[in-house]
Amino acid sequence: MSREQISYEVSEGIATIMLDRPDKLNAFTHVMRDELISAFDDADADDEVRAVIVTGAGRGFCAGADLSAGAETFNAGANDERAATRWAAGQIDGVPRDGGGTVALRIAESRKPVIAAFNGPAVGVGVTMMLPADIRLAAESAKFGLVFARRGIVPEAASSWFLPRVVGISQAMEWVATGRVFGAQEALSGRLVSRVVPDDDLLPTARAIAREIADNTSGVSVAVSRQLLWGMLGADSPWEAHRLDSKAINHLGAAADSAEGVEAFLAKRPAQFPMKVSADYPDFIPPWPRRPGSP
Amino acid sequence: MSREQISYEVSEGIATIMLDRPDKLNAFTHVMRDELISAFDDADADDEVRAVIVTGAGRGFCAGADLSAGAETFNAGANDERAATRWAAGQIDGVPRDGGGTVALRIAESRKPVIAAFNGPAVGVGVTMMLPADIRLAAESAKFGLVFARRGIVPEAASSWFLPRVVGISQAMEWVATGRVFGAQEALSGRLVSRVVPDDDLLPTARAIAREIADNTSGVSVAVSRQLLWGMLGADSPWEAHRLDSKAINHLGAAADSAEGVEAFLAKRPAQFPMKVSADYPDFIPPWPRRPGSP
Amino acid sequence: MSREQISYEVSEGIATIMLDRPDKLNAFTHVMRDELISAFDDADADDEVRAVIVTGAGRGFCAGADLSAGAETFNAGANDERAATRWAAGQIDGVPRDGGGTVALRIAESRKPVIAAFNGPAVGVGVTMMLPADIRLAAESAKFGLVFARRGIVPEAASSWFLPRVVGISQAMEWVATGRVFGAQEALSGRLVSRVVPDDDLLPTARAIAREIADNTSGVSVAVSRQLLWGMLGADSPWEAHRLDSKAINHLGAAADSAEGVEAFLAKRPAQFPMKVSADYPDFIPPWPRRPGSP
Repeated sequence: MSREQISYEVSEGIATIMLDRPDKLNAFTHVMRDELISAFDDADADDEVRAVIVTGAGRGFCAGADLSAGAETFNAGANDERAATRWAAGQIDGVPRDGGGTVALRIAESRKPVIAAFNGPAVGVGVTMMLPADIRLAAESAKFGLVFARRGIVPEAASSWFLPRVVGISQAMEWVATGRVFGAQEALSGRLVSRVVPDDDLLPTARAIAREIADNTSGVSVAVSRQLLWGMLGADSPWEAHRLDSKAINHLGAAADSAEGVEAFLAKRPAQFPMKVSADYPDFIPPWPRRPGSP
Repeated sequence: MSREQISYEVSEGIATIMLDRPDKLNAFTHVMRDELISAFDDADADDEVRAVIVTGAGRGFCAGADLSAGAETFNAGANDERAATRWAAGQIDGVPRDGGGTVALRIAESRKPVIAAFNGPAVGVGVTMMLPADIRLAAESAKFGLVFARRGIVPEAASSWFLPRVVGISQAMEWVATGRVFGAQEALSGRLVSRVVPDDDLLPTARAIAREIADNTSGVSVAVSRQLLWGMLGADSPWEAHRLDSKAINHLGAAADSAEGVEAFLAKRPAQFPMKVSADYPDFIPPWPRRPGSP
Repeated sequence: MSREQISYEVSEGIATIMLDRPDKLNAFTHVMRDELISAFDDADADDEVRAVIVTGAGRGFCAGADLSAGAETFNAGANDERAATRWAAGQIDGVPRDGGGTVALRIAESRKPVIAAFNGPAVGVGVTMMLPADIRLAAESAKFGLVFARRGIVPEAASSWFLPRVVGISQAMEWVATGRVFGAQEALSGRLVSRVVPDDDLLPTARAIAREIADNTSGVSVAVSRQLLWGMLGADSPWEAHRLDSKAINHLGAAADSAEGVEAFLAKRPAQFPMKVSADYPDFIPPWPRRPGSP
C-alpha cells in the first residue's frame, strides 16, 4: 500500500509510524486515518515487529482534525467532500462511524505494544486517538488540548471511555470542561504522559523502551498480556480474570516460550523465544466485546 | 423556593452554592439536602449558568451529618424526628434512601460542571457528596475525614462507587479503613483535590476555572461531555463509547455551536455559541443506568 | 493446622503473616499457597484480629514462583510433581485453577484490612498476589518485577483485573510489557506502594497503620466498607452503590456500633465497639460476582 500522509518503517524489531503532513502540523484526515489502520495491520502481521512507535514529522505531533472545510468540518451531511470523508466507511447504530474512533479501536486491538512519542502540539484527535497506546512520552515542547468543547463538539475516538481510565475522571473532566491547551509538565502531573524529556531525547527514549521490550520478552506473552489488561478494564469481577488467566497460564506454561524463558533465566543467559504472534496467539483470548450489529 | 441552610446566587454565568449553617460548621441535615437538590435543579434549568461552585460559609465546609440526635442519628426507625428526616423520601429495595446519596446522584447528573471549593473541614457526607463534582480545590486550612468506620457505619452517598474511581482503590481503602482526619496536602497527594491554595485564593481560583469554562466553551458540549465521561466509567467496552460518540459527533457536528466554534477558531476571535442546554441537550444521550424499580 | 512455609501470629489485635522460606527468598509453592489461604481463613474467623500484615522472612519478600522444576515449571501436564502441584485443586472452565489466583481472590474476600509490607525483592506472584491488599508499603531495599513476559507466560493471580485498577492502565502496561525489575522509588511514583520507608521502619510503619485501624474503628464497619469499595469497582453505575449503601446504613445505623461511635465522639472518649465480624457481618452484602459454574 502506498502511503501519502504517514510513513512506516521497521528497523531492528521496531516499527515507527510517522504522521507526515508537516506543513499542516500533521492534521488528521480520512487518508491519514486509513493509512494508520493499515499500518497497524501491517505491524500485527509482521513477526519482526515487537513494538510500535507513533510520532509526528516536523514541529508537531498532530494539530487535530483538518479544518479546511470550515464550519462544515464535522457535518456528515454537508455537501463538501472534505467533511463527508471525515467519517469512516460503515455505520454504527444508523450513523456514520466517527473516524478517530476507528483508529483508537484499532490501536486498542494491536497485538504489539504501542508507544506514542509526542514531539510537539497534539490537539483533539491528535491526543484522543493515542489514549489506547500503552506508553505516552512527551518532548518538552509538546502541548496538548482536549479542545472539543471549544469547537462545539464532544470528545471522540472513544475517549469518553479511555480518558478517565488513563488519567482519572477528575483530571479528565477538568481538561474536557475547560478545553484548555496545556504543556508537557501539566500532562506529566496529570498522568497523560509518563515522562517528559528534552526534545532531542524523545525518539531515543521511545526506542530505548521499545528495545527493552524487544530484547527481553516473548512477543506472544506481551500480545496476550495487552489484551488481558486492557480487556479486563471492562470486567465486573476479578473472577473473570482468574478464569481467563488460568486458561492462559495453562496454555502458555506448556509451550515453548515458557520453557525457554525459565531455562534462560536459570542459566543467566538472554532468552531466545521461538514462538510467533502470527501463528501462536491463542484463539481462546476474547477480543473486546462489541455491540450486537457493530462492524 | 426559600432557602434556609444554603445560599444560591448567580453572577456572570457562575452559580455559587454556599452551605450556610456556619455556627454548626454547616452540618448536613435533611433541609440542606433538599435545598441542595433544588439548587442543582435551578442551575440546570438556567441557561445563564455555565458552572456551579459549592463552598461553605464561615470557617468550615461541612462537618458531616448533624449529630444532634446522638446515638439515634443514623437510626431510621428511631422515634426522633431529627433521625427519621435524615433519610430521603422514597425507598430503594424496601429501605429509606440514604439522604447523602440523593445529593451525590443529583450532582452526578448535573448538566453544568461542578467545582467544589473546600474552605475548611469537610468530614463524612461533607466529602462524599462532593465526589461527583468535576473539580475539587482545597484551601490550605481544609481538613478531610472519611470517618464512617469511627462512627460504626459505612461510607454512603454512593461513595463506594465514586471514591475508588476518583482517588484509586488503595488510597480509598487507606482513608476508609483508618477513618483518619487528614490535611489539604495529603488530600492533594492522594488526588482527592487537584490544587491546594492559600485560603484567600480559594474562591478566586474556583471562579477563574469557572470563568475559563464559561468564556470559551459550548454549554451543550460541556453538558454532553460530562454525561459521556462519567457514564462511560461504567461501560464494559470502548465500543460503547464509539457507538455513542459517533452519534453525538454526527448530531452536534451538524449543529450551530460546531459551525461557530470552528469559524471562530479559524478567525481567531472568541466564539459566541448560540445553543442552549435547556433546549438543545440531545435526547439520545442515555442517563445513568438505574436499577429496575429504582426511583 | 501446622505451618511449614509461613508463620502466623496474632498480637494486640494484629495478625502478622510471614512468608517463611528465607533460604529460597520465600519462593511461592503450593504449600505456601494453601497455608496463606488457611491463614486468611483464621484471621477472618478470629474477632481479635482487626488487621493483617503480610511480610517476608529474611532479606526478601517473595522471589516469585519456585522454579525448581525448570522448563516444566508452568506446565500443568508435566510429569513432575513440583510443576503439577503448582495448580490449585479444582478446575475452572475445564483447566486447573491458577494457584496464585486462589490466594489473590482469598485476599480480595478478606473481612480484615490487609497491609503488605515489602521488605525486599517481590517478583511475579510475589507482587500480583498482594494487589488485593488494601495498603502496600515498601522498604527502601525492596525491588519489584512483573516479569511474566520474560518467562514466556502472562500476569496471573487475576492481576490483569487488579493491576490496572491499582496503578492505572498505562503504568500497568509499561511494567508488564517490559517485564523490568524496578526499585522502591519507581513503585512509589507508579503508585504500586503508598510509602517507602527505611528498612528498619517497615514493620513499625505497618503496625502503626494497623494500630490506627484497630484502636479507632468498628470491625464490622471496616469489613463491610472493604467489600463495598472493592465490589463496586465492578459496578456499572453509582445507583448500585446507592441501593446497597442505603441498605447498609439503615442496618448499621440502627445497630450498637453506630450508637457507640456517635456517643463516644460526642463525649470525646475512645469508642468501645461491641459488635463482632463473626456474628454481625450483614448477610445482605453480596460477595464478589463469580461466573456460573466457578468454584
